[in-house]
Amino acid sequence: MGPHPAVADVRRAVRLCLADLSNRKPGKSGKSGKSGKSDERGQGPLVLVACSGGADSLALAAALGFCAPRLGLRAGLLTVDHGLQEGSAERAREVVRLAPALGLESAEALTVVVGGAGGPEAAAREARYEALSRAARRLDAAVVLLGHTLDDQAETVLLRLARGSGTRSLAGMPEISGIYRRPLLGLARVRTRQACAALGLSPWDDPHNADPAYTRPRVRHEVLPVLEAALGPGVTEALARTARLCRDDADALDEWAGDVYVKSLEAGGGAAGVGEAGVGEVDGGLSAAVLAEAPAAVRRRVLRRAAVAAGSSASALAAVHIEEVDRLVTGWHGQKGVDLPGGIGVVRRYGTLYFVGKLVDNLA
Amino acid sequence: MGPHPAVADVRRAVRLCLADLSNRKPGKSGKSGKSGKSDERGQGPLVLVACSGGADSLALAAALGFCAPRLGLRAGLLTVDHGLQEGSAERAREVVRLAPALGLESAEALTVVVGGAGGPEAAAREARYEALSRAARRLDAAVVLLGHTLDDQAETVLLRLARGSGTRSLAGMPEISGIYRRPLLGLARVRTRQACAALGLSPWDDPHNADPAYTRPRVRHEVLPVLEAALGPGVTEALARTARLCRDDADALDEWAGDVYVKSLEAGGGAAGVGEAGVGEVDGGLSAAVLAEAPAAVRRRVLRRAAVAAGSSASALAAVHIEEVDRLVTGWHGQKGVDLPGGIGVVRRYGTLYFVGKLVDNLA
Repeated sequence: MGPHPAVADVRRAVRLCLADLSNRKPGKSGKSGKSGKSDERGQGPLVLVACSGGADSLALAAALGFCAPRLGLRAGLLTVDHGLQEGSAERAREVVRLAPALGLESAEALTVVVGGAGGPEAAAREARYEALSRAARRLDAAVVLLGHTLDDQAETVLLRLARGSGTRSLAGMPEISGIYRRPLLGLARVRTRQACAALGLSPWDDPHNADPAYTRPRVRHEVLPVLEAALGPGVTEALARTARLCRDDADALDEWAGDVYVKSLEAGGGAAGVGEAGVGEVDGGLSAAVLAEAPAAVRRRVLRRAAVAAGSSASALAAVHIEEVDRLVTGWHGQKGVDLPGGIGVVRRYGTLYFVGKLVDNLA
Repeated sequence: MGPHPAVADVRRAVRLCLADLSNRKPGKSGKSGKSGKSDERGQGPLVLVACSGGADSLALAAALGFCAPRLGLRAGLLTVDHGLQEGSAERAREVVRLAPALGLESAEALTVVVGGAGGPEAAAREARYEALSRAARRLDAAVVLLGHTLDDQAETVLLRLARGSGTRSLAGMPEISGIYRRPLLGLARVRTRQACAALGLSPWDDPHNADPAYTRPRVRHEVLPVLEAALGPGVTEALARTARLCRDDADALDEWAGDVYVKSLEAGGGAAGVGEAGVGEVDGGLSAAVLAEAPAAVRRRVLRRAAVAAGSSASALAAVHIEEVDRLVTGWHGQKGVDLPGGIGVVRRYGTLYFVGKLVDNLA
């Protein structure tokens, strides 16, 4: 008898996600279970799983423990103690103690101090990723797996939608980002619960996930049920599908913008903003004529890229800033320069856009 | 004393929207009110406004009546009697009777018969647009104005989101589509109510707009308030901004896809599907090598375009169909052809994709 369908689903997702790291031939894997496992300890690239003890990451950790030896990989677990809840240290220890039974060779609890910048959710997230990245470097891990599911992706799209910041934002969480991979983005959350139940694992329910003081739980428990009731079932899947489509679209447009950026730099005589002499030095600019030929969506991406390269902060750059710079290209009537966050000024001279630091803003 | 700010907002939106039709020099318009109005009757292009008697289209009709003579345009009104509610014919007559007071030269009620295909909202919409288009042709109108506001756009984005069909879908309603224009897409619904009140106009409240049996009222009265409560104010504006960004992105990607389509046809030896000999005849195909160089988002748009050109129905073509055709390009292992809605088959032979009708599917 094979594994429970939910367990099989999670394992399949992990296998697909790690296929490129495997040194095993396809077809040989998955059958020679036990012997493979003991043979390969201490060999192959290290894959870590970030596990909170919740159903998603617990099912993921179990699947990694099962799949890693069959793929010729080593597997370990990291759990983060945010120190924000009563008993969080003990819970982290429990997750660590569980690791051997899940088939994971190593396990470690990382204690972090959560600051307050950007709200409690953002601060906890930042502290968590910093600790995970540092541990991954220290342990020389190839990959860190994260347990985000299709439902998390749908919630992310809704949260991003409320910002109105476009295709890249609606693309949600990427399947691969640096050392991080999210194998479960195509899997409904209910499947990870089923997998845990089938494996006899008792997941931990983070009370934060039900706390309406946080934005994501409100989306999960208030917004999505109302959306499903009003628009019919399948909204969660539709949101996740939207994310995938938007990701492809954003990737293609970034590629195009990269081409136009290079061409407009070549025609404009240099590298905008960041030259050998450092940020803020002018050593060339972007040709307005080349920019004007590109569609609005591409042009604005190029202008954003040039502004960031010149030293403006990506998070502080709003659509209105870029639109004002765009008018130097498409609505040129000799107007004065545009000021951007980070003390960057943009001026147009003889058909070329220069992104300049404040030190040289006497150019304007 | 100038007009109420809300009235000024609606008029400004109408003026901007019709600027390209005006035969007046900017600066001369708007001041010589009455004389301009009487001088120009019977001259200039005709602009119609579709008016239900609701606040949005009533404010729009009043603004058109005010602006048209100042822009050297003629203005008329159309109202549609769907025959779905008690007293709808009388209400249509009332809207028509209001026209002269709004400064509109002509007014007409169009009676339509609403079928049942695609649900009541879709059927009413289809009947309405068909009647409006026919009347516009008969009257030789240059433009038909529609009263959709920023709130309608936000609702549309949410409705489309639930389909998960990507950037073009999330782009919502276009500002210009054929003879139709939507000047109020940047204006909140509350502004049109304020404008009506300031002008002493009593808008009609369509009971359908509050009927939870319809999807759009559910989005308006149930989903959006919950979204605003969970994510903070500004969600409506963010959704409308998302639509604009997605429209630019979709336009740019369509442009790219058009280029790749032509190049892959040239390299593939002909025009896919629709040749001189008609739909289903093979007279060339798309080069898989050219397609493979394009990013996924562009490639899938080209494949969709080729499928539609070959006679497959755009509305019946789902993402899964296009993905299967895409595997003939990116996952080629000699697999058999792909069947698409409308009896279209896609086969790959010697590096070229052929979109063929059923009559010639013995190619496969």
